[in-house]
Amino acid sequence: MKRALGPSDRLYPMPSPLVVAGTLESADTLAVAWIGIASATPPSVAMALRGTRHTLEHIRKQGDFTVNVPSTSLAPLVDYCGLVSGRDHDKFAETGLTLAASSAVTSPMIEECPYNMECRVTHEIEIGQYVLVIGEVVETHAEEAILDESGTRVDIEALDPLVYIAGLREYRALGRRVADAFSVGKTVVPKE
Amino acid sequence: MKRALGPSDRLYPMPSPLVVAGTLESADTLAVAWIGIASATPPSVAMALRGTRHTLEHIRKQGDFTVNVPSTSLAPLVDYCGLVSGRDHDKFAETGLTLAASSAVTSPMIEECPYNMECRVTHEIEIGQYVLVIGEVVETHAEEAILDESGTRVDIEALDPLVYIAGLREYRALGRRVADAFSVGKTVVPKE
Repeated sequence: MKRALGPSDRLYPMPSPLVVAGTLESADTLAVAWIGIASATPPSVAMALRGTRHTLEHIRKQGDFTVNVPSTSLAPLVDYCGLVSGRDHDKFAETGLTLAASSAVTSPMIEECPYNMECRVTHEIEIGQYVLVIGEVVETHAEEAILDESGTRVDIEALDPLVYIAGLREYRALGRRVADAFSVGKTVVPKE
Repeated sequence: MKRALGPSDRLYPMPSPLVVAGTLESADTLAVAWIGIASATPPSVAMALRGTRHTLEHIRKQGDFTVNVPSTSLAPLVDYCGLVSGRDHDKFAETGLTLAASSAVTSPMIEECPYNMECRVTHEIEIGQYVLVIGEVVETHAEEAILDESGTRVDIEALDPLVYIAGLREYRALGRRVADAFSVGKTVVPKE
């Protein structure tokens, strides 16, 4: 039996990266669970920011931003970045998170996050009280320690990415491997 | 030490819902990892579909779609829906997945998926070879067995949502609780 819960912004699960915009000298960051892939060619992300967000001012000024995926050990610092505003707080000085120069965009990356995406803004769409910012992913970086033997693919257990659960407002880790994608479906015997 | 991996559409982790569009009599579904929240007011989702997708024709015809979150036990059927095209396959007949009427939109929901979102298309944006479809979430449903004691919140362990890992092309389950969001950050003592 199903129960109607009303209109909702809860999708399960969500990522929990830190988005950075600005310069090495003056940047802001915030935790963004409302983010997903917007295209594969060209690779792009779409993220929803409240129109009043301080980070949005930096994004508009630079025309770029970075998406920085934290491991679960960074949960307290990620959460801190979501609790305070960059208008009154230097989140980097306060958390000890370190900015590193990007290679293709002005907005810097967070050194302590083992996976980073450099994004150049291509579209901005107003949706109610939110702005959906779409950015082309022009470069990605990974800590060597989180790459698998191929040297080009992320070892997901080494990355140990932070996961956000809306509604319950909790952070989770990833769990067991369930199956190979584009593969386990071949075991299904069509009923008709 | 970080290594540059080039432009990429890999974000960690991603959800793995089945998107349905059409009518109770004629619908199509596909697995969509490239989906995220696009606004909270009004609640909206954004998902990237290749411009050639058969499901996109149904979405354009109906002006709506549903997002159906599967538990990990459905991984083979979800994967099957990503392997074959609705142009040559009746994925519902073949997988045994059951369509149920939605309450606010024409596109039906998948009964076996314990969490469902009814979405009405509000925007469509072309991004390279992809179409970013934005839909307002006008209703959600959850199986009573996956609600917590409040009766209004999803118990994430009961939902046991399927998670997609790009690059490695694998499905995962969620793992341990790491911390409370909007809470654990208060334990951080600012360094400056």
